[in-house]
Amino acid sequence: MVRAGRSLQQLRPISITRHFIKHPEGAVLVEFGDTRVICTASIEESVPPFLRGKGTGWVTAEYSMLPRATHTRSSREAAKGKQSGRTLEIQRLIGRSLRAVTDMAKLGERTIYLDCDVIQADGGTRTASITGAYVALVDAISSLLAQGKIAESPLKEAVAAVSVGIVDGQALLDLDYQEDSSAEVDMNFVMTSSGRFVEVQGTAEAEPFTLEQMDAMRNLAMTGINQLFTHQQEALSR
Amino acid sequence: MVRAGRSLQQLRPISITRHFIKHPEGAVLVEFGDTRVICTASIEESVPPFLRGKGTGWVTAEYSMLPRATHTRSSREAAKGKQSGRTLEIQRLIGRSLRAVTDMAKLGERTIYLDCDVIQADGGTRTASITGAYVALVDAISSLLAQGKIAESPLKEAVAAVSVGIVDGQALLDLDYQEDSSAEVDMNFVMTSSGRFVEVQGTAEAEPFTLEQMDAMRNLAMTGINQLFTHQQEALSR
Amino acid sequence: MVRAGRSLQQLRPISITRHFIKHPEGAVLVEFGDTRVICTASIEESVPPFLRGKGTGWVTAEYSMLPRATHTRSSREAAKGKQSGRTLEIQRLIGRSLRAVTDMAKLGERTIYLDCDVIQADGGTRTASITGAYVALVDAISSLLAQGKIAESPLKEAVAAVSVGIVDGQALLDLDYQEDSSAEVDMNFVMTSSGRFVEVQGTAEAEPFTLEQMDAMRNLAMTGINQLFTHQQEALSR
Amino acid sequence: MVRAGRSLQQLRPISITRHFIKHPEGAVLVEFGDTRVICTASIEESVPPFLRGKGTGWVTAEYSMLPRATHTRSSREAAKGKQSGRTLEIQRLIGRSLRAVTDMAKLGERTIYLDCDVIQADGGTRTASITGAYVALVDAISSLLAQGKIAESPLKEAVAAVSVGIVDGQALLDLDYQEDSSAEVDMNFVMTSSGRFVEVQGTAEAEPFTLEQMDAMRNLAMTGINQLFTHQQEALSR
Amino acid sequence: MVRAGRSLQQLRPISITRHFIKHPEGAVLVEFGDTRVICTASIEESVPPFLRGKGTGWVTAEYSMLPRATHTRSSREAAKGKQSGRTLEIQRLIGRSLRAVTDMAKLGERTIYLDCDVIQADGGTRTASITGAYVALVDAISSLLAQGKIAESPLKEAVAAVSVGIVDGQALLDLDYQEDSSAEVDMNFVMTSSGRFVEVQGTAEAEPFTLEQMDAMRNLAMTGINQLFTHQQEALSR
Amino acid sequence: MVRAGRSLQQLRPISITRHFIKHPEGAVLVEFGDTRVICTASIEESVPPFLRGKGTGWVTAEYSMLPRATHTRSSREAAKGKQSGRTLEIQRLIGRSLRAVTDMAKLGERTIYLDCDVIQADGGTRTASITGAYVALVDAISSLLAQGKIAESPLKEAVAAVSVGIVDGQALLDLDYQEDSSAEVDMNFVMTSSGRFVEVQGTAEAEPFTLEQMDAMRNLAMTGINQLFTHQQEALSR
Repeated sequence: MVRAGRSLQQLRPISITRHFIKHPEGAVLVEFGDTRVICTASIEESVPPFLRGKGTGWVTAEYSMLPRATHTRSSREAAKGKQSGRTLEIQRLIGRSLRAVTDMAKLGERTIYLDCDVIQADGGTRTASITGAYVALVDAISSLLAQGKIAESPLKEAVAAVSVGIVDGQALLDLDYQEDSSAEVDMNFVMTSSGRFVEVQGTAEAEPFTLEQMDAMRNLAMTGINQLFTHQQEALSR
Repeated sequence: MVRAGRSLQQLRPISITRHFIKHPEGAVLVEFGDTRVICTASIEESVPPFLRGKGTGWVTAEYSMLPRATHTRSSREAAKGKQSGRTLEIQRLIGRSLRAVTDMAKLGERTIYLDCDVIQADGGTRTASITGAYVALVDAISSLLAQGKIAESPLKEAVAAVSVGIVDGQALLDLDYQEDSSAEVDMNFVMTSSGRFVEVQGTAEAEPFTLEQMDAMRNLAMTGINQLFTHQQEALSR
Repeated sequence: MVRAGRSLQQLRPISITRHFIKHPEGAVLVEFGDTRVICTASIEESVPPFLRGKGTGWVTAEYSMLPRATHTRSSREAAKGKQSGRTLEIQRLIGRSLRAVTDMAKLGERTIYLDCDVIQADGGTRTASITGAYVALVDAISSLLAQGKIAESPLKEAVAAVSVGIVDGQALLDLDYQEDSSAEVDMNFVMTSSGRFVEVQGTAEAEPFTLEQMDAMRNLAMTGINQLFTHQQEALSR
Repeated sequence: MVRAGRSLQQLRPISITRHFIKHPEGAVLVEFGDTRVICTASIEESVPPFLRGKGTGWVTAEYSMLPRATHTRSSREAAKGKQSGRTLEIQRLIGRSLRAVTDMAKLGERTIYLDCDVIQADGGTRTASITGAYVALVDAISSLLAQGKIAESPLKEAVAAVSVGIVDGQALLDLDYQEDSSAEVDMNFVMTSSGRFVEVQGTAEAEPFTLEQMDAMRNLAMTGINQLFTHQQEALSR
Repeated sequence: MVRAGRSLQQLRPISITRHFIKHPEGAVLVEFGDTRVICTASIEESVPPFLRGKGTGWVTAEYSMLPRATHTRSSREAAKGKQSGRTLEIQRLIGRSLRAVTDMAKLGERTIYLDCDVIQADGGTRTASITGAYVALVDAISSLLAQGKIAESPLKEAVAAVSVGIVDGQALLDLDYQEDSSAEVDMNFVMTSSGRFVEVQGTAEAEPFTLEQMDAMRNLAMTGINQLFTHQQEALSR
Repeated sequence: MVRAGRSLQQLRPISITRHFIKHPEGAVLVEFGDTRVICTASIEESVPPFLRGKGTGWVTAEYSMLPRATHTRSSREAAKGKQSGRTLEIQRLIGRSLRAVTDMAKLGERTIYLDCDVIQADGGTRTASITGAYVALVDAISSLLAQGKIAESPLKEAVAAVSVGIVDGQALLDLDYQEDSSAEVDMNFVMTSSGRFVEVQGTAEAEPFTLEQMDAMRNLAMTGINQLFTHQQEALSR
């Protein structure tokens, strides 16, 4: 297996553009190769019922794809009247990932919504979403600090995510759509900047995988995520 | 009433970017000032049940706004499980407008979906959607012609749309969000390049309007739409 | 084009029967030819959440057709579990039209529901609904005045509506179903008794229309609506 | 307990008006006192999937109340997006009752929809619906016979229904809304003109009832239903 | 007609197992032959909105079947997104039946949910549910008494239910699925231990039934329900 | 941390009862301690549309919990009208796990539905479901073989699943509800009898986890799953 333009251990070109949309407190366009996701962070001065009066905040995510983000048009979930299991699964993952690096007591009794809307899909939309949503979250937190609404950042460390897989028996980093379609195994890793794991999800699409394969994928993911932290830092320092 | 940077009879800066997304047969980013809409055209080789076997095609539209396209976040229709009356009304309008310039027999037994997704809203999202969707539709038709699937373009003429209104008693062209919020009357005109009307919608938001006001708004709209046809042509000639 | 029993500029026989149903505060059977609509006005001593505590009222409308109001049975929206785009569009139009003549501060913190249920459809159901709902609204307001709940009528003027269209190139007033089905253009005008416009909606069903055609239709509509005001007054004086 | 204008063993004034609406094959306005229901019968030349190709027909019913058929406005089921348990229960009952007197083989592979829409409710809406729907069904069957679509009527006998109850310990026939609200027991009987039972439904609203009370109610119901058969016959002979 | 293993007047083997599940306040597995239903009673210290602040309680029921409780798999209502008319009808019946023997004032401002989940269906699931739910309700009430939350039992008497029918012209007690499928008439009786009726529901599936048949069925039901009271008492005394 | 009755590396008592329900082709009650799940396998002689005519089969799963399977009653998904994200996520996991060991070509053009209904929940419901569903699947396959519908078993190997977690810094096997509630990390492993992985899901509930912790959990899971294979074999040999 040979990849056009990059080695098996390489990420696609990564781009993180802040302030892509004018209204939200955080608004990022994140690109992993041809995968492009708009990640916005919106602050609301209230919390869900189960948290009211407890003095702690909440971070939650919603995910969607434009109908024609994909090769063939998929029908619009709002028109069908329900979100698919895949959508719910991904947005739950994004929400958990960002909550893992946020101190809810320091956030105070408010909610931050992270909306990840895929405008072009080419594999890895959930990992790009997590990576971009973190940057949008930092910007939203900065606006709270600037307004004096919170005294101290509730962010404990950075979080980023990448997909890895086994294609033709070989471990690959950051699969695009075509690679993903022919992968025997597909894993997603979500890690924090202290080198720890927040989420690990591995699925044998065709054939169960061995301990050795899992370790090879995990090593690749750790390398890739470290590079994503650098991209996030560069975007945030601009 | 004085407008920053433009006269009462002027459009906002208009921008039409083709090929904004890679997968769709037509993919346009249309901007009316700060209003930004992704309009894609997707071809499907089938028609709705009521047209099957009749040899004629169909053009239909779907419309949505990203939750944070607006000043404050609005909840996601897919999550709520139904589209609002406003959404249905707008997408029906877009569909009718584009069907008005398409010869369904020449299109053949296929459907073109026009998806208009507002990524940033600042007034006039439905008129920007119609104006941009026309360009996406031209590109989709061109791909059908290039593939030899149709021999002749089913497009009869161009279509574009603009909003007009009465603010502080004066007629204004192409209202932005703030103007729209304080307008006494809001009208939308959809016209074809032969100078004829496809849709006219006027609503008194605060106070009923007079015949003279309607005529003043109509005149403004006719001027503005002519300029939009020029923008469409320039985009298509690039 | 020749019409059976009336000229192109004539309304169908109009009938407005008050107190058609015993429970509602206002209950009108309105007939435009064979189109028959039950319009009821119901008072509730509360307002929607967005108005609570502001001291102002609300007027809203709901619209429906009995399954067999039409030539062929259409399926029941309650059974399908959602209202069609057409239904939502019409009931939003009715609500806006009646709100345009009501002073919400004078109404006080209460809601008036206008339910328009078409029991027999033969074209012009939305214009008949608006015309009849106004009379039901007057009766409901009278009951509030009679009970001393409000001191002064919140109604600023009367409102009525009519459809016009172009059939075989000629402008027609108050189209029945068959005329509507073959119309090239279909417009609905909603006006107040001071001769001003509340809503204007024009749609080219087959062919875009010219400025001259729009003006011809508008003139017809203005004449027809004036006659509807007379019918409303006669019904209210009985 | 004394009743205004009728004895405890008397029906309310019954009225059955045929051809109340022009489009349906059968269209009846049935009135049991102040309860008024429009019952239409619509023929469709197809059957539900589970009957296709079997050569037999189907009779089914749908039931609804206008929002303001009642003292206080109830919210519209189409707007809520689902039919209540009460609605489903009643329309299932109406369907079963009319199917009980129809020979499905003689009906042939077609469906008759019975739509019962209550425009004014004052108790006994389900029994009025059944009684009126039978007359609408006869008219629809007659149109099939007249068109030569069927050679012989599939109707085996007539069907009608009445409510009975216990109020203040006494058995009452044909309860109005106020009586129904204070009834200890509420029973509905559906019978055929051969004096047999199709449906029996009894519910203790406040206190369980005895065998003797059940028998007293049953006797009253049998008398009342016989009178309803006469009303149906008279309406059909006009 | 001859029955395997029992006479026409006999119940199937009845079994009532308490404490079948560990969490609920009442948890019964009830078996009528091969029909097996888990009935749980759950106490919630709140009441529905229409009862708040009135000092009285509420008893309500929900009913469901596992998809494969039946011979062929039926689709899951949660997946279809709505409960069928049959489900709603049955759970309303169960709720009414149990409320009939409960003094809501003595229960205090709390709700008892009775969940009846059929894990194996062989006819009579609604009557088994009522019979088992009563035992679960007694256990839940006992826990309230034991905790001192109420001083006195709100249960006025016992309630149980059985089905009867006409098969081949003969009256049968407690029909299993196969008998039910071929029954000409199907009746369900719900009675209290004082020998009074709470609910009576009879349906002619094929042919209307006579007064004599109704009486024969009623007699059978009264005998069968008396035996069910004994089974309930035995279970509660263990 | 000390566990009552078992070491940190021990499974809870495991019980697998076949033929628990009479209708389904496979019907298993699986118990992991106090967690009890009914797993049924139902064969349908058709496949979803995307597979029609391809000669291959499908295996899919649905998951649900009885409302009172848990400490406090949770509302019924059928009544709410939609399945939660958690439910969809779990049933997708079960389906993928069982498909991973099934040769769809050998299964032929038919679908096997695996319904996992939790009647009592005490942690690990998804892993118990997968482990039990495999046994139900084997029984369903056996019935196909016995009827000669397939010549050869499509099952490639066994599949089972277990949860592991970190509580108070220590790795634990097979967490019950209370342990799961206080776990810092929660992982689920799905493996095949050849010692390979089908699914790996790890979530940091409170604190991100290290590579060493992941390896400790993985080792525990591998040991536990091997014991589950023994339990499955024993159940199948009875």
